[in-house]
This record gives sequence, C-alpha cells and structure tokens, in this order.
Amino acid sequence: MTARVLLPWTDISVPDGLAVSHYDGSGAPPDLREVEFYVLPYDSGPEPPQLITKMPSLRAVQTLSAGYDNLLPLIPDGVRLANGRGLHDLSVAEHALALMLAAQRDLPRWFEQQKVESWDRVHTRSLADSRVLLIGYGSIGRAIERSLRAGDAAVVPVASAARPGVYGVDELPDLLPSSEIVVLVLPDTPRTRGLLGRRELALLPDDALVVNVGRGTAIDTAALTTEVTNGRLRAALDVVDPEPLPAGHPLWTAPGAIITPHVAGGSASFYPRAKKLVEAQLTRFTTGRPLANLVH
Amino acid sequence: MTARVLLPWTDISVPDGLAVSHYDGSGAPPDLREVEFYVLPYDSGPEPPQLITKMPSLRAVQTLSAGYDNLLPLIPDGVRLANGRGLHDLSVAEHALALMLAAQRDLPRWFEQQKVESWDRVHTRSLADSRVLLIGYGSIGRAIERSLRAGDAAVVPVASAARPGVYGVDELPDLLPSSEIVVLVLPDTPRTRGLLGRRELALLPDDALVVNVGRGTAIDTAALTTEVTNGRLRAALDVVDPEPLPAGHPLWTAPGAIITPHVAGGSASFYPRAKKLVEAQLTRFTTGRPLANLVH
Repeated sequence: MTARVLLPWTDISVPDGLAVSHYDGSGAPPDLREVEFYVLPYDSGPEPPQLITKMPSLRAVQTLSAGYDNLLPLIPDGVRLANGRGLHDLSVAEHALALMLAAQRDLPRWFEQQKVESWDRVHTRSLADSRVLLIGYGSIGRAIERSLRAGDAAVVPVASAARPGVYGVDELPDLLPSSEIVVLVLPDTPRTRGLLGRRELALLPDDALVVNVGRGTAIDTAALTTEVTNGRLRAALDVVDPEPLPAGHPLWTAPGAIITPHVAGGSASFYPRAKKLVEAQLTRFTTGRPLANLVH
Repeated sequence: MTARVLLPWTDISVPDGLAVSHYDGSGAPPDLREVEFYVLPYDSGPEPPQLITKMPSLRAVQTLSAGYDNLLPLIPDGVRLANGRGLHDLSVAEHALALMLAAQRDLPRWFEQQKVESWDRVHTRSLADSRVLLIGYGSIGRAIERSLRAGDAAVVPVASAARPGVYGVDELPDLLPSSEIVVLVLPDTPRTRGLLGRRELALLPDDALVVNVGRGTAIDTAALTTEVTNGRLRAALDVVDPEPLPAGHPLWTAPGAIITPHVAGGSASFYPRAKKLVEAQLTRFTTGRPLANLVH
C-alpha cells in the first residue's frame, strides 16, 4: 500500500513506496483525503495548519518551527507531531551577529550617507575586543559564541544556573557593569520574563548595546525605551514585547535603536537543514521507526 | 639626556627617561624642535605628516597606517620610518563580515522598514552555507576565513599562486561559476589591477555578491556597475575606483549595492593594538634596539 505524503518542496529525496503531493502554502491545496504524513510549509500564515483538520488518513505532522503550541489543538489523538527543533539555530545566531556588527560598525549611518552620496568618514566602535554578555547558552547561544570568539570578542556566557565556565543569572548584577554588549537568547517562560528590568539596565555602562533575538518578554520594554530614547543605551532588537512593535512607539525612531521584525530564524540557511530532517523523518516513517523530535 | 617623544594619546605606558608631549591631529602642535620620536595621529588629514619637516632633532617616525607612500618624500635621510602593518587587520576583517551579513540578511531593507514603522517579514538569504571565494589570503583574509567558518560558510581561499589548500588566481575561471559570494582583500599592485574584469564577473552565477575591502582597483568598476545596475549581481564595497565614488555614479543608487566610504580599517579594535605597538617601539627606541615594522 502506498502512503501519501504532502510536502512543501519538490526538490528533496523521498524513499521509494511513497506517493508525494505538494503544497507550499500558496494556492489551493491538493486532495487531502489520503494524506498520511504532512510537512507544514514554514512560516506561511494560518492556512496550512487548518488543513490538518481536513486529513482523515493523517498519521504524522512535521512542523519546521521550533514552537508548536498553536498546532496542539488541531492534532487528533493518535496523530504524531514532530517539531523543527534546532533547524533555525544557525540562522538566529547569524542574525544576532549581523545586529551586533550593524550597531558597532555604524551600518545605519553608512546606508544613510549612501543615499546622499556622501563619502564622509568617521571611526566606529568595533565588535572585536568588546566584552559580550551572552544570556541564554543553548545551541543558539553556543553558535553566537563561536562567531564572537572567531572575531576576537570576549564572551561571558550566562545560563539559568552556574556551571563550570558558565555564570548563573543570579550573578547578573556583578556582570552587567563591565558588559559593553548584552545578547539575550531566551525563550518566554515565567523565569525569563522581565529578566532585564529597570534595575538591571541601569547597571550597564553608558553606550552599552542590548541585543535581543530570543523573546521580547525577557526585557522590560518601557525601561529599555527610556534608556535608549535618552541616549544612555543602544539597542538592536529582532524581538520586542509586544509584537509587532506598535506604530508610533518611540523605539522605532530612537537614534540608537535598530529594529528588525522577528526575522532572525527565517534565512536560507534553514532550508538545507529542514530538507535533511524531512528526508530522515520520511525514512523513519516508511521503515516503521519512531520519528525524531516528537512532541505529541 | 632626555629624548622627547610626540604621541597622539595620553593613556599609554611610556618607558622611564622619555619626555612626552602630545598631538592628536587637532589644534596647534606643541614645540617640535626637540622631538626625536614622532607617532603620527591616525587618519587625521594632511597636517600631521607635514610636521615631520619641522622637527630638526627627529630620529624616528611611527605611522599607524599600513600604507606609507605619502610619507616617504617627507622623511629625511637618517630618519627611520616604521609602519602600522597588521594593526588594522581585525578591523578590516570585521567590516568585511558586516558587509556580507548586511547584504545576505537584507539589513538595508529592515532599516528602511524601521523608518516607516513596518513589521513586514520576508525570508532572506544567509551567509551560512554560502560558498565564499576569498581572493587575497594574507592576515586579513585568514581572519575573514575564521569568522566565515565559525558561521558555517564554505570558504575557498585564493592567493597569487596555488599552494596546498589554497587556489591560485589562474584558477579563477574554474572557481567563479560556483561562488555565491566573492570577497577581495588585495593591495593595489600591477598584478591585482582589474583582476575581476568583465569576463570574470560574467562567470559569476546570478545574484552573486561581490565584496571589496582591499583596494578598488582590483575590480573593473564599469563592468561591475553594469552587472549591478541591471540586477544580475550584487555588491558591497568599502573601496572603489576612483575614491571617493563620484557624485551621481550609478553604484550609489543601484538597488543591489551597499557602499561604505573606506572605513573598514578605522574601528576601535585598532587602538589597543596600536598602543601596544607604540609601547613596544618606545622600549626598543630607549634601549637602542632596532624598531619593528621598519620601512625606511
């Protein structure tokens, strides 16, 4: 019997004995009645998840995101769900590095000068030799650390609890005053919410740069906004609280603020890793072995 | 007898037995008649070099640039000249990385969106997984390579002649067609001029990114301009030929072009290295040992 799989791409290797159809999140989906294995198109809005409810033969769903809370209510009993844990790590780490370099090497200034065709030159800060406090030390944090060390920055890693070579969050009051850059790579949990509040931000030295590529809730947005709009701190944020950042919010226009719209995870480096995962999952599926990254 | 040294900074350690005065390139210089060792302020215009001719006691000049051609006509016989070879390597490598990330991760797009307070999201290219042809494999090239490898890009190093693990420039026709990014880190010499001409650029795949942090003469500017303005190639250039890029030049406004005004070497990471060099040179000077980095 031929199992039917619904995939978002045409250019991956599929094990023999599978009937493949395609849906990339745009246009009308194909016949869904026989689909047994559904790989959701990545970051394609609310439509693709809703199709789950129209697949009576469904046995497994693969999402390419790390988060899956929005899918759980749609997954019937007996249907397995696997997530995309790790697929976006490198993309997020790369965007964090891009934000740090943009802020330290004055890229917004150069892009403005380009528009008025100006060759004015000034010396800039650097990322090299900077002391970077890296809060959140999972696989994304370690990828950021590798790039920073390759560029001769000094990295101070911080995790929820201290361990050899890694500080604990309870040590932040001692670490913040000597940190020129703080990078947050934290999920949204009760313990991370508001971790950088008014008091913690006040401990940073003048001109320090606050970078966030985790979840916006880890920072007290109002407190950060005050410090950035009055020019004492700088910020480069891919995530904010709330999201989207509301129109008219002072962070949009503060001179020391760089805002990107939660795009750290969505770069091309994700696709080869996603395709490799799906190929391996389909092999497991056809040979009856348990899927990796199961979350339901 | 007390030797007098003229330094651009007040915050460095100077060996005993030296009388120090300061000149950072701004304002009026101090009394120059007894200056024996002159450290030129970095990148401060034409005034500081001219002072050399007003120092009758001069024995040694230290420039903090790698280039020194403009100084040679001013240096009297018997006066030594040492250059700043290597001091800017890390700064240049870091700027090259910033340019690559800005282009691959669409930073100009996000900065424009920030101005209109837009949270629109699109997926971008990545630097990770890109195949990067690195032309020029001295200390700057190797620093760029370390950062690229840390970020999971594939690096293909090219030097003037092939050696184990490094391709020769004569192999460029074979290497260009599979390179998504080309980074040039070449000095201006008769052999490097026009290295990337119309034919070489035509060998690059569509959408490839050309990055230059060496000297502008290595690229045929007219040929690159054609490829970028017609949208086939992209460019991120800190150096161009000629410099400054003339007002009205089409590269200023081409959608796929990022221009920075020859600022790769001028970031803060340069200063600690420059101060360390000067401290070591002053120790050599006072103990009668030959200076490092002598070029005259």
